[in-house]
Amino acid sequence: MANTVSLVKTSYGAPMELADLQRRMADTYGERDQARGVPATVAWLTEELGELAQAVRKGSSEEQLHELGDVLAWLASLAEQLGLSLEDAVARYADGCPICHQSRCRC
Amino acid sequence: MANTVSLVKTSYGAPMELADLQRRMADTYGERDQARGVPATVAWLTEELGELAQAVRKGSSEEQLHELGDVLAWLASLAEQLGLSLEDAVARYADGCPICHQSRCRC
Repeated sequence: MANTVSLVKTSYGAPMELADLQRRMADTYGERDQARGVPATVAWLTEELGELAQAVRKGSSEEQLHELGDVLAWLASLAEQLGLSLEDAVARYADGCPICHQSRCRC
Repeated sequence: MANTVSLVKTSYGAPMELADLQRRMADTYGERDQARGVPATVAWLTEELGELAQAVRKGSSEEQLHELGDVLAWLASLAEQLGLSLEDAVARYADGCPICHQSRCRC
């Protein structure tokens, strides 16, 4: 199992569910998301992915963690605006690879 | 609250935690991820974001859901390879906007 580094103390003890994350994003940014619209949200998500790529290439672990969070937050905003659930989106990965159906992918 | 459409039946009842997702990705794709390396994983993530953008522009809700899942899965793979936790990555969003600190962003 990969060594997991926790650089940010969670502000609460409970693990975050994908549905929780999406709900929190909707509460915090829902109005702004609706006003901005889907295409602009895709543009923002793309910008954040670029920042993540840069952090991965030449940034610190702390910067990488920050950008991972931003990308995930924007992905949740986009899902919400599309009326779709991130929880459902990953359901097909629940039992191993959705293509070869192995618990360790053999594609 | 946005209308959430569930197009994919979850194969189990329990909600998925971010840490669970990351662990499942590591179990399923960890060996391939390690062999591929981080830069190639960033390239894949970028490719998937492009597919998501296309699905958002001209695809069905089902296609959008599929691509949301792929982006999230690749993001989890990347986090795992970096030795970082997606759970920690979003912790700073736990209590509203991390910049203005409002439960409804006023930035």
